[in-house]
Amino acid sequence: MTVSDFSAIAADIHKAVAAQGFMQLVGAKLDSLAPGEAVLILDRRPEVLQHNGFFHGGVIAFLIDNGSTIAAGTMFDRTRMTLTAEYKLNFLAPASGSRLICRAKVLKPGRTLTVVEAKAYCLIEGEEKLVAAALATIASAERPKAA
Amino acid sequence: MTVSDFSAIAADIHKAVAAQGFMQLVGAKLDSLAPGEAVLILDRRPEVLQHNGFFHGGVIAFLIDNGSTIAAGTMFDRTRMTLTAEYKLNFLAPASGSRLICRAKVLKPGRTLTVVEAKAYCLIEGEEKLVAAALATIASAERPKAA
Amino acid sequence: MTVSDFSAIAADIHKAVAAQGFMQLVGAKLDSLAPGEAVLILDRRPEVLQHNGFFHGGVIAFLIDNGSTIAAGTMFDRTRMTLTAEYKLNFLAPASGSRLICRAKVLKPGRTLTVVEAKAYCLIEGEEKLVAAALATIASAERPKAA
Amino acid sequence: MTVSDFSAIAADIHKAVAAQGFMQLVGAKLDSLAPGEAVLILDRRPEVLQHNGFFHGGVIAFLIDNGSTIAAGTMFDRTRMTLTAEYKLNFLAPASGSRLICRAKVLKPGRTLTVVEAKAYCLIEGEEKLVAAALATIASAERPKAA
Repeated sequence: MTVSDFSAIAADIHKAVAAQGFMQLVGAKLDSLAPGEAVLILDRRPEVLQHNGFFHGGVIAFLIDNGSTIAAGTMFDRTRMTLTAEYKLNFLAPASGSRLICRAKVLKPGRTLTVVEAKAYCLIEGEEKLVAAALATIASAERPKAA
Repeated sequence: MTVSDFSAIAADIHKAVAAQGFMQLVGAKLDSLAPGEAVLILDRRPEVLQHNGFFHGGVIAFLIDNGSTIAAGTMFDRTRMTLTAEYKLNFLAPASGSRLICRAKVLKPGRTLTVVEAKAYCLIEGEEKLVAAALATIASAERPKAA
Repeated sequence: MTVSDFSAIAADIHKAVAAQGFMQLVGAKLDSLAPGEAVLILDRRPEVLQHNGFFHGGVIAFLIDNGSTIAAGTMFDRTRMTLTAEYKLNFLAPASGSRLICRAKVLKPGRTLTVVEAKAYCLIEGEEKLVAAALATIASAERPKAA
Repeated sequence: MTVSDFSAIAADIHKAVAAQGFMQLVGAKLDSLAPGEAVLILDRRPEVLQHNGFFHGGVIAFLIDNGSTIAAGTMFDRTRMTLTAEYKLNFLAPASGSRLICRAKVLKPGRTLTVVEAKAYCLIEGEEKLVAAALATIASAERPKAA
């Protein structure tokens, strides 16, 4: 993949992410993209917490799921689209702190199935603490042609 | 467990769910509770969709996660609290339709670990279609005494 | 799928299973096959136990894995082959008893990905006890032509 | 944990592994142990292969399962025992080569739940190739007192 190929892929991904209603609702941002890698961030606010004041597990899952799909999506040009087939997520510690960060990285690329490792960290007084780990399978298929 | 025991448990669960900021943000509702079982529902609206107009995977995960924890929570009185340790989720079909329904059921209760099966369905023209399946491990621990 | 189609598929599966060195080593048997379903059994003997006298977790995983792939394989004719992409397995109870039984059932068939639910039971004094539950993703691809 | 504490733990683990009938049947060896880490190896032979000549998925799962439990077990003294609660395993590539190697590492230790990452590699002409990745939850409980 050349740098200009990846720029086009990255531009497409940014556009798709900006069009997701749920991404806007949650308030998560795509922080960085590289071939096989994506970083999403979400700043703390009351609406994304559970009843004990930690980031809600569903919010962590959302970042993990989206981050994994986006990381896999960096491996493909615009003729293919990616879909989360499945993932498994372990919650490791209460997600406190001011910011939630999801780092997703392709472990094994593949034409139809891409396997991604994703981890979620909380930023607590300037230090990152691991709060969740996931292993995801992302399916890729030819994008239907627009009419 | 007697019926009055379960009523107290159910009342506690309804109160905890009502206090979740993220549950309110997403707009999901706890539809029904029984010993070992919980049903959550979420009606379609733009904010819970992804860019192709389907319910967002993160929303489905949130319902599965919350439904599994709630189903496990029905097995314990107020001296114990439940936490999602981990889950695995397969997406089976695009989540279209007017309503998302999550049915979670305890497969194996246990004092420290409860295993729950959860499925998500979409209501499409009056028929339920299976869109996701999950297997979750919910941890239970003694609730810290309030000061 | 007609009955004669399925007979040909079943015959192919029985042949492939018989050729697996590990299946022979473990001593597991393919007990029954139906479209979307497979049952494997393994009788107790010292070599398949762990150090406390229960069926070894690795043996249970092997039956779950093989059973899931075989159940998915019933959905395809001989032009396609199936491979386990991933699975998640919860151990629910110690696997005692005289026989281990794995029942695998297709939850969602698909041309490239088939999702299978599998459960393992122990036969204890004539009664089946659930000891493990799994959710598996089986990939299917065109079988390479023989030269 | 002091070095002498860990030596006692390591000796206990070696003894328990040597007593596993299935470990002997498969022919796997515990290659190395460190606090939070375990390495298992298995050399190629016909009985551990599937019908295409690759290491059988069930064999890989067995190494992953055992390696994860052993890695978690390094965190506890002999008053506690460890049990695999669940794991999720992705198969990434056909497992060819002369040797299968499983490296398991504790991601998050805990008194009742320890989360472990495990990877399986094949040794092919002197180079290691990643063939499987897993995320496991290992439960720990007080060991029943011997009579």
